[in-house]
Amino acid sequence: MSSIDHTHDAAATSWVEGADTHADFPVQNLPLGIFSTANRERRVGTAVGDSVLDLSGMAEDRLLPGNLRAALGAGTLNALFALSASDRISLRHAVFAHLTELSSRMEVLPHLYPAQACTMHLPFAIGDYTDFYVGIHHATNIGKQFRPDNPLLPNYKYVPIGYHGRASSVRLSGTPVVRPKGQQKPSYSEGPGYGPTYRLDYELELGVWIAGENALGEPVPIGKAASRIGGLCLLNDWSARDLQAWEYQPLGPFLAKNFLTSVSPWVITAEALAPFRVAQPPRPAGDPAPLPYLLDAADQAEGAFALTLETWIATQKMREAGIPPHRLGTGPATSMYWTVAQLVAHHTANGCNLMPGDLLGTGTISTPDTSGLGSLMELSQGGNSPVTLPDGEERSFLEDGDELILSARAARDGFRTIGFGLCSGVVEAAKV
Amino acid sequence: MSSIDHTHDAAATSWVEGADTHADFPVQNLPLGIFSTANRERRVGTAVGDSVLDLSGMAEDRLLPGNLRAALGAGTLNALFALSASDRISLRHAVFAHLTELSSRMEVLPHLYPAQACTMHLPFAIGDYTDFYVGIHHATNIGKQFRPDNPLLPNYKYVPIGYHGRASSVRLSGTPVVRPKGQQKPSYSEGPGYGPTYRLDYELELGVWIAGENALGEPVPIGKAASRIGGLCLLNDWSARDLQAWEYQPLGPFLAKNFLTSVSPWVITAEALAPFRVAQPPRPAGDPAPLPYLLDAADQAEGAFALTLETWIATQKMREAGIPPHRLGTGPATSMYWTVAQLVAHHTANGCNLMPGDLLGTGTISTPDTSGLGSLMELSQGGNSPVTLPDGEERSFLEDGDELILSARAARDGFRTIGFGLCSGVVEAAKV
Repeated sequence: MSSIDHTHDAAATSWVEGADTHADFPVQNLPLGIFSTANRERRVGTAVGDSVLDLSGMAEDRLLPGNLRAALGAGTLNALFALSASDRISLRHAVFAHLTELSSRMEVLPHLYPAQACTMHLPFAIGDYTDFYVGIHHATNIGKQFRPDNPLLPNYKYVPIGYHGRASSVRLSGTPVVRPKGQQKPSYSEGPGYGPTYRLDYELELGVWIAGENALGEPVPIGKAASRIGGLCLLNDWSARDLQAWEYQPLGPFLAKNFLTSVSPWVITAEALAPFRVAQPPRPAGDPAPLPYLLDAADQAEGAFALTLETWIATQKMREAGIPPHRLGTGPATSMYWTVAQLVAHHTANGCNLMPGDLLGTGTISTPDTSGLGSLMELSQGGNSPVTLPDGEERSFLEDGDELILSARAARDGFRTIGFGLCSGVVEAAKV
Repeated sequence: MSSIDHTHDAAATSWVEGADTHADFPVQNLPLGIFSTANRERRVGTAVGDSVLDLSGMAEDRLLPGNLRAALGAGTLNALFALSASDRISLRHAVFAHLTELSSRMEVLPHLYPAQACTMHLPFAIGDYTDFYVGIHHATNIGKQFRPDNPLLPNYKYVPIGYHGRASSVRLSGTPVVRPKGQQKPSYSEGPGYGPTYRLDYELELGVWIAGENALGEPVPIGKAASRIGGLCLLNDWSARDLQAWEYQPLGPFLAKNFLTSVSPWVITAEALAPFRVAQPPRPAGDPAPLPYLLDAADQAEGAFALTLETWIATQKMREAGIPPHRLGTGPATSMYWTVAQLVAHHTANGCNLMPGDLLGTGTISTPDTSGLGSLMELSQGGNSPVTLPDGEERSFLEDGDELILSARAARDGFRTIGFGLCSGVVEAAKV
């Protein structure tokens, strides 16, 4: 696991204007992403305050470790995350020095762009995307609606349940959410029909970007699984609940999910998150212990993340009336029944190969009470109990014009809070 | 849909030795693949008899249409299948002319390699792999074992059931099948354990290689869906039945399937298959008609494929005793409840984008009787009724050392039979 060093010093300051007061991107964060400008093709960057530092340009000018030059010259982060964690730590150290030492200012300034002048792009060419289901309160809440007597199936506390998602339809935050069409069979209808979903929902998840590679046939032992976490992002697993209910048996969700998955643009690296590792909450009494291939003392001691997650909504009417986004919920990322390392160990336990830039979704993260439910399906109890918004509007599911926004912050006493930026999307009407 | 032309003339002959008598690769087939030799990096080739013709080399020597040169210079077929079908037809016509006209022999010969001197590679960089479940007899047989009273769920005859598979673990025929480990919970056991699967199975499927691209948000209408079929291959969806039974609810198969998926090396193109299109068998009386977005008269009239599929097994003992492979079953590809065009139309009905080189599996194709069951799970009735092999060995599931071989041929009166080559794999012991 990455360790805490001088780049996490809360007292460190940057010469970049606004960085030290930025809620998400102080110099202690240094997230990685892919951006372009009007004049420059896709390149690797980091966010510092409201600026983006061009790491590809810095490498071209030999201001960064030479062994990283090839990886930093690519239009995705895949090559950088194929390298070892120590390479990414050396990058972090070099960038941190450049942004904190005033003596670097003159040579670094030409590589600094206002964030507004930058277009962000998907950070990785995603080989495979896997979505898990580790938010146990979400699984219980949803399970109750589909199987009232049997919300958590017998395998839930043994198997980190997951399934394959669609890589081609993962898009960056800001991509419009075109209301998908599909087959639905309402309970009052004898047969199914095809049309726009009328139960469009969001799902608050963390995304995990995989670093490194295990060969096909070579499981990653739980003790080494944390090293495969390249970084985290926010992930919205947009879901069409009516399509899902009709299609999901026996092989799982398919068209209900694969029309769009949104991720936040910046990779919050494992290195940046080192101070925010906390113990995995103990399992409730009576729950089985994880099987040995999923159990590691160090992982139990510091495998969870001290993150606070938030979900916000702004309807079109609210925006037109100048009403700020309304917070639908907030809660901790520790409501996950399994650690991310356990997800990696389980995913590879049969020899499945995970590649740099593969994406894992954690599954929806909900609180045990109603303060931080990660989907409208839970908030509105399957559509039966609409949420009332500040302007009096009600929502059982998302309507055209709604903007849904996810955010996350990592905080710990004695350390500078860092943030993930936003993952947002506005719902557009179905195409005719 | 591709049409029949002079390249399908059964009387056409090639100057390439052995091509005219080859069971799979006469000059009427011209499948596409990626190969390398001791001296040459990955390149595009076609199989003719027991030879491989280097199409990349032919293009470099300006023996093929100039507009194809860039696509033929790549180490995968993705670029070639991003082009229009008319481009691939012009390629087919040019190659056919070179291989049938004796006047071409001298300039083509330097590009011809013995197949034994060639190493085949995955034909595409696979972006996404989706597995369907359209073999209705298989779905019924398996459904009976998991849900005796309810083999086909209510959605089966409305929804072409599918789910996302793992792209990174798709490998070429010949890749060893390392017995995977995973969680199992036998009925006699109180809790699950982790160990090598003891119910390793194969699944006989067709693979569909996607041509062209639809933008995210843009469904492919059923009338245009056949144009997205780039070609077919054989696909073995290796399955660990014990892992599957324990993990698959509620989100579908995951580790039971993603340790390896094998495909045959040659892409049997839509153009080559044009003479072998047949009517989709009428649905049994009482079955619902497909919803309008899945129904097209031309697709119903010629959307199915006249293919005969075969499955063979050769145990280690059989091989050592010189006993030839034993045929486990044979049957037609028309035992599919949906056409491939219906799979494409359904997959994109919510706007999901399919990219060139994406792979669809049809799902296991079984006959209604026991003559052509596509898995041991069906042949042995869930392990309860082992299959007896020619040397007296019995098999409920695959054992270490077993080789499993799939083959397919397309035949029609008046046309030259063409074949798919083989898709094979030998089971190896689990790693310690």
